Amino acid sequence: MFNRLSSFVGGAVGAWKVRSQVAYIGPPLAVVDYVSVANGLETNPGEGWSLHGIASNDRYVVRAEKQALVVAQQGLGRPEATFAALIPIRKNAAWWAMTQDERRAVFEEQSHHIRIGMKYLPPIARRLHHCRDLGMPEAFDFLTWFEYAPPHEPAFDELLAELRASEEWKYVDREVDIRLVAIER
Amino acid sequence: MFNRLSSFVGGAVGAWKVRSQVAYIGPPLAVVDYVSVANGLETNPGEGWSLHGIASNDRYVVRAEKQALVVAQQGLGRPEATFAALIPIRKNAAWWAMTQDERRAVFEEQSHHIRIGMKYLPPIARRLHHCRDLGMPEAFDFLTWFEYAPPHEPAFDELLAELRASEEWKYVDREVDIRLVAIER
Repeated sequence: MFNRLSSFVGGAVGAWKVRSQVAYIGPPLAVVDYVSVANGLETNPGEGWSLHGIASNDRYVVRAEKQALVVAQQGLGRPEATFAALIPIRKNAAWWAMTQDERRAVFEEQSHHIRIGMKYLPPIARRLHHCRDLGMPEAFDFLTWFEYAPPHEPAFDELLAELRASEEWKYVDREVDIRLVAIER
Repeated sequence: MFNRLSSFVGGAVGAWKVRSQVAYIGPPLAVVDYVSVANGLETNPGEGWSLHGIASNDRYVVRAEKQALVVAQQGLGRPEATFAALIPIRKNAAWWAMTQDERRAVFEEQSHHIRIGMKYLPPIARRLHHCRDLGMPEAFDFLTWFEYAPPHEPAFDELLAELRASEEWKYVDREVDIRLVAIER
């Protein structure tokens, strides 16, 4: 089974209810009431939207960082993690034209993306999905997904503020911030 | 137009005639007489095969290397480059589990992939297509494409011998080597 692909479908049904949708950079997505998350390719034939992304290999993380992350991070699906955030992001042509060392230098040496993120583990769980190299045109390059217990939302907002103020974020040309709550189970 | 995706279709028609097909590692592809190369998603409903790959950002190349490559390399479609090679490759789970620094160390510091390739520029033109993160299951991780004038095939075979003897190639678990000639124009 090809399970590295996920679909995030905004519409009238889903396991996650939308609390807010904000376009930070670039145009918004259509306003929807629910988001469903599924393995494989799902689309929305109605008035909502569907975004697709694939879990892939590390692009910047080095072994020493990975060891530290693995010790500190927790996975998705924790019962107390009833808040979520889906933040689709696109980076500009200048970012993609940079070589591997240049992008790593912006990502970590200058922006401290990994170091900043480490401060918010383990309360914030996350998964990164890549969209740019899917065989079909996607509106974004990355779908970033986060889960946490509600009391940790202020800390999550601090994390985002730090990242949005960084050198790396100068290359972001589209960003939508969707906050969700798990449907009562 | 979404033009980073290419389809390589093996079958009864195409602009390239198959001279040979050899499975170096793992199972072969079905024997075909022609290969067609197209932008976008094309499939083969018959007894041949279709492989898809996408041109993407640099994964290992650093700026200093890029500068040297750009000066030395030539593009596809040179009139004298009537021989081609399509070499689909898959790497194993151990490769993909390595962090970015580990894979770079194998790729260049140990295997000298870029340094070896530089020796064969400009006669050998190349393009790398990624398959592993397409939204659909593909048999390979990479589709490597090369073009050269016929007298350069011995040098091309030397290049491949060097790469196949390297540390990087210990992680390759499927490789098919298809040699082509351009149909008379």
